[in-house]
Amino acid sequence: MLKIMEASVAYQPVSPLEDLSSLLEQDMECVNQEILTRMTSHVPLINNIARYLISAGGKRIRPLLTLSIASILGGDMRRAHGLAATVEFIHTATLLHDDVVDESPERRGKAAANEVFGNQASVLVGDFLFSRAFQLMVADKSLETLKILSDASAIIAEGEVMQLQMQRELETSWEQYIDMIGAKTAALFSAACEVGAVVSEADGNLQKAAYDFGYNLGLAFQIADDVLDYAADQAALGKMVGDDFREGKISAPVLLAYAKADAMEKQFWKRTITAGRQEDGDLRQAQQILEKHQIIEEGLEKAEIYAQKAEKSLEILPASPVKDILHRVTDYVVHRAS
Amino acid sequence: MLKIMEASVAYQPVSPLEDLSSLLEQDMECVNQEILTRMTSHVPLINNIARYLISAGGKRIRPLLTLSIASILGGDMRRAHGLAATVEFIHTATLLHDDVVDESPERRGKAAANEVFGNQASVLVGDFLFSRAFQLMVADKSLETLKILSDASAIIAEGEVMQLQMQRELETSWEQYIDMIGAKTAALFSAACEVGAVVSEADGNLQKAAYDFGYNLGLAFQIADDVLDYAADQAALGKMVGDDFREGKISAPVLLAYAKADAMEKQFWKRTITAGRQEDGDLRQAQQILEKHQIIEEGLEKAEIYAQKAEKSLEILPASPVKDILHRVTDYVVHRAS
Repeated sequence: MLKIMEASVAYQPVSPLEDLSSLLEQDMECVNQEILTRMTSHVPLINNIARYLISAGGKRIRPLLTLSIASILGGDMRRAHGLAATVEFIHTATLLHDDVVDESPERRGKAAANEVFGNQASVLVGDFLFSRAFQLMVADKSLETLKILSDASAIIAEGEVMQLQMQRELETSWEQYIDMIGAKTAALFSAACEVGAVVSEADGNLQKAAYDFGYNLGLAFQIADDVLDYAADQAALGKMVGDDFREGKISAPVLLAYAKADAMEKQFWKRTITAGRQEDGDLRQAQQILEKHQIIEEGLEKAEIYAQKAEKSLEILPASPVKDILHRVTDYVVHRAS
Repeated sequence: MLKIMEASVAYQPVSPLEDLSSLLEQDMECVNQEILTRMTSHVPLINNIARYLISAGGKRIRPLLTLSIASILGGDMRRAHGLAATVEFIHTATLLHDDVVDESPERRGKAAANEVFGNQASVLVGDFLFSRAFQLMVADKSLETLKILSDASAIIAEGEVMQLQMQRELETSWEQYIDMIGAKTAALFSAACEVGAVVSEADGNLQKAAYDFGYNLGLAFQIADDVLDYAADQAALGKMVGDDFREGKISAPVLLAYAKADAMEKQFWKRTITAGRQEDGDLRQAQQILEKHQIIEEGLEKAEIYAQKAEKSLEILPASPVKDILHRVTDYVVHRAS
């Protein structure tokens, strides 16, 4: 485990998301301006929380995807700005509600909003941001983008409920897990890409390629995220290592480790995950079990398969400097901090 | 106080909402079918909660308003069914989140969903219903109804946050209170009516009349609801009397009583509402203070003013049996259980 963490520092690549942000700098500025403007409310508490969330930053990977696809396909960038902001609003709203549901103390290396402003405010401001996302969609005046994004929103909510239902359930199958992260995470990645194709009036094949790229990238991203929760260099990930373990979340490393567990290890997982009885040193023991079975490597290999699918979807998109960076993004989501 | 409660049983009118439901029975069946169909998900927990909420019933006043206006104005009832269901979805989603925020043990005379299924599920299923509402709006394929309902959703969320901000704040002005309930409650009443006019392709004056009717009816409804929380026959209202008091909510009766309070009473309100230090018998004492200053009567008079404004907005609508019942609805929302 330690070896992986040390290696991560040595081989940390320059983030292709930063390269994308530079290449699409003016567009991202428009998106940020749209986000700032539309987050504003005459209700002071909403502004305070919105400002807090904006200052916490984040990678803005989803709006960057919308802009990237629209840019590669020669789309209407003005529409892309609004839709990219919409996608980020939906994402931020789900984060706010996630933190309430998870009782997370931290998010993006800062105290989570619910810790600072309370669960009540987080629920209601999440609702506000979600409504604002829909207002922004309506402003795009396209029933096609409205359908894509409202469908994605419903699927995300279903994914979150699926996650809640499989909490502490070690008998969850790998397929159920993929279904769940497909809904919870990949649905918004794919919608972000698809609307980028729609504002480019791309043909059906290109639109499908954009969707497939986003969907598989989202799966790779989430599997890697789940793996890194047991392995990552805490500072690089910007979240607490071991959160998922403490919450009894069913995620890739737990499922892969449980499948290979001997009788003693099965007992360990049942006590810590199913029964939720955790003691000092249990996270360390979980990490040792993962190391013994090389679960981090196995998990990242699974993520890698989806990353490669995503990369393959890019093939039919026209060549462009943005497309070159998207190739690197598929690699980055898997290897970003490992 | 007791006298008012006894009188309520004697003079309880037949609910005009039931009369509306009878007159619009086939339409309401279509709406209920739409609600049932669209609440369904492949995720079992969502279905369980949805079924629980449906079985809890409720007055369905908002969808009845959409149907009523569309019926009076000769609108496209097929569109009205979908939009009425949308409005009820938005309302149900906000109820689910409200109960989490309020930590309510009861809703509509049953244990609140968050008590049965947990806060986490209530937050997430609320998000699902909210997303489903937007999918239903998109299915209407009209940017005009989408704008009305997405604007209303954002305003409702702002109203909820305003309410949270003014909690325990006795210096809240009456105007601030009206602003808050205008956003929290009246915005959805007015949107429900306005979309009924839109599917009727009514002219601007009629659309404005529908909006004004809903808005003022919503204000009257909420003021009366807040008053009844201190006065009502518990069974008739289907909610616990004294909830608002226990939660330190700033509502019409508290504001009116605080404005008339002597020094001792001011201390009482500061202790129980601002500081939230409540003892056995405090609710009873609050009710006695309200009785001394005739606050129930004063509150209902304020509600009555908005009810009359609502009634006046109906004037330019064409005569119809449905319109006749709407006249009675304006009276009912004020006097339903007092």
